[in-house]
Amino acid sequence: MAVYNFSAGPAMLPKEVMEQAQSEFCDFQNTGSGLMELSHRGPQFSQVIEETESDIRELMNISDDYAVCFVQGGASMQFSMIPMNLMLPGGFAEYADTGTWSAKAIKEGKGFGDVKVIASSKETNYDRIPVIRHWKPEAGSSYLHITSNNTVAGTQYHSFPETDAPMIADMSSDIMSRVIDVNKFGMIYAGAQKNLGPSGLALVIIRKDLAERTPANVPTMLKYGTYIETQSMFNTPPTFGVYLLGLVAKWLKSKGGIVGIEEINDVKSEALYELIDNSTFYRSPVDPSSRSKMNVVFRLPSEDMEAQFIADAAKEGLKSLKGHRSVGGIRASIYNAMPMKGVEALVDFMNEFARKNG
Amino acid sequence: MAVYNFSAGPAMLPKEVMEQAQSEFCDFQNTGSGLMELSHRGPQFSQVIEETESDIRELMNISDDYAVCFVQGGASMQFSMIPMNLMLPGGFAEYADTGTWSAKAIKEGKGFGDVKVIASSKETNYDRIPVIRHWKPEAGSSYLHITSNNTVAGTQYHSFPETDAPMIADMSSDIMSRVIDVNKFGMIYAGAQKNLGPSGLALVIIRKDLAERTPANVPTMLKYGTYIETQSMFNTPPTFGVYLLGLVAKWLKSKGGIVGIEEINDVKSEALYELIDNSTFYRSPVDPSSRSKMNVVFRLPSEDMEAQFIADAAKEGLKSLKGHRSVGGIRASIYNAMPMKGVEALVDFMNEFARKNG
Repeated sequence: MAVYNFSAGPAMLPKEVMEQAQSEFCDFQNTGSGLMELSHRGPQFSQVIEETESDIRELMNISDDYAVCFVQGGASMQFSMIPMNLMLPGGFAEYADTGTWSAKAIKEGKGFGDVKVIASSKETNYDRIPVIRHWKPEAGSSYLHITSNNTVAGTQYHSFPETDAPMIADMSSDIMSRVIDVNKFGMIYAGAQKNLGPSGLALVIIRKDLAERTPANVPTMLKYGTYIETQSMFNTPPTFGVYLLGLVAKWLKSKGGIVGIEEINDVKSEALYELIDNSTFYRSPVDPSSRSKMNVVFRLPSEDMEAQFIADAAKEGLKSLKGHRSVGGIRASIYNAMPMKGVEALVDFMNEFARKNG
Repeated sequence: MAVYNFSAGPAMLPKEVMEQAQSEFCDFQNTGSGLMELSHRGPQFSQVIEETESDIRELMNISDDYAVCFVQGGASMQFSMIPMNLMLPGGFAEYADTGTWSAKAIKEGKGFGDVKVIASSKETNYDRIPVIRHWKPEAGSSYLHITSNNTVAGTQYHSFPETDAPMIADMSSDIMSRVIDVNKFGMIYAGAQKNLGPSGLALVIIRKDLAERTPANVPTMLKYGTYIETQSMFNTPPTFGVYLLGLVAKWLKSKGGIVGIEEINDVKSEALYELIDNSTFYRSPVDPSSRSKMNVVFRLPSEDMEAQFIADAAKEGLKSLKGHRSVGGIRASIYNAMPMKGVEALVDFMNEFARKNG
């Protein structure tokens, strides 16, 4: 039986990537050692990290004004590194609150300056992205922080604000899933474990001039400048994670790059939303303006029936469909690596389940 | 041809561990997914992290007064987290300077309080551990920081100071290689990539009461308390690294635990030092009182001959024998995973090379 893993993260990686990593796990490029057993300063890993950066730059069309960094600690560490490095002295920063992860970023920002929440959908249970034309950013903000896709609520920005302050986006759950203009952002960051690779690695794309803001007393490992100046090699980077991210980047290139994968992602999410919208059995709690193409959340007529759905689906090889523990319901995470066949299998199962129980 | 990888880190892992990880890389416990593709809150990884902690506690005989934490950022991040969390308000901390890595720890400590270097072997090129009975720790120190094994200089503590202040040891390069009494330490930490697993993970063993010192304004991800209170699950931990560390711990148990591996490590290092001491061709730059059982460094009559040695050894499958770029010479890193056969192959090669070139 084929297994399709709809986990929100750590999430499935492309089958081809997993198989290649397995085949060379104990012997990388005829060295007799696995990649993770080789020195990070040796020729093999040097080539891996250089190609990975170069492929990411090509895929996302990143200019030389930006650095591409590999940092440990996940997006959660970025919640602190951002204000620590980028809050202007005595200044303030603006945040949009669109869910659990935004709220965590806001909490960590508060230790380093004045934090202003300029938009929030908390009052409607984070069921939408607040309408951007109503946002009123102030002049002089250190930066504006947004969360481009919200894994718990199942919402996603379909356009971005225009701001004077550098815009910083947590793209942990939709990076490289759609074409974006990097030049609109001061910084983009993403924990790897959804669209990019294994947990334990965050990708940080930062406009180099912003890193000059960092106060002198920030510890070396927490300064963006350290990663920029050393090509992320101040200390031993998570070599196996960088290698897997590199394999994922090459896989994306083989799929036609971000343009190619975005087309596939559109078809995948449309198939699920079409079924939900045409159903009297399934229901989307998300405002149609803000639906995520990565995390499709939906409800059934009762919580008992949702539990039954999750259990029956798992028996059919459709795994990890349970919604986040804070909101319940069903969540199908369909990141880049989820093939169309997995979505088709879920659609078939949903139709059959509704027929039996509706 | 058998390949033996003498890299100082990332370093070789036990063959049995690599083979098991490879065999279940794409399908962990019949889930149809690799371990790294599974949710960190699911039953499989929960069992992995619980067993890993429990096996580490058993191997090192760690009491309930201590927490065992899995932290990202390597030992270098600990250089900052230690003073950030454990420097007493307005206080000072003591450090012993025994090499490159001690010096880095000292540098990061300076941002958070007064740092006193109470012992140093810098004047003799770090060729020894300063004689401990001459150390004069002061009352009231926040902690005393030491580096138990020094990978660059090839030195190691063979006894530890007795102190009133909590002793904190960077054991990145000799953790679990020999029996130590954890109760003598306030905290022990180690980057995984030498004796424990892949890079991107640090093991932190900390006396729980010390974590109560942390000032309130320390960011969540940089507080030891966060890791203690959430069993290292505040955010997504580096799941694959924890899993590999768990496999290494089970492998160590199969070798008779730390007692068993220490016996093997003694035999391995003695074989090399005996050859060096009986040779007129090879020479140890390290004071005999302080020689490392993990990183055996030695010199040949000339740098040209050292380059030849490294090149010829690589042709015989004896790889990564080059000394650290800051000191040159030869370095054979023989951590737990290096089998006796690898050391025997090196001994044979060294004898043959000396015969040909001596």
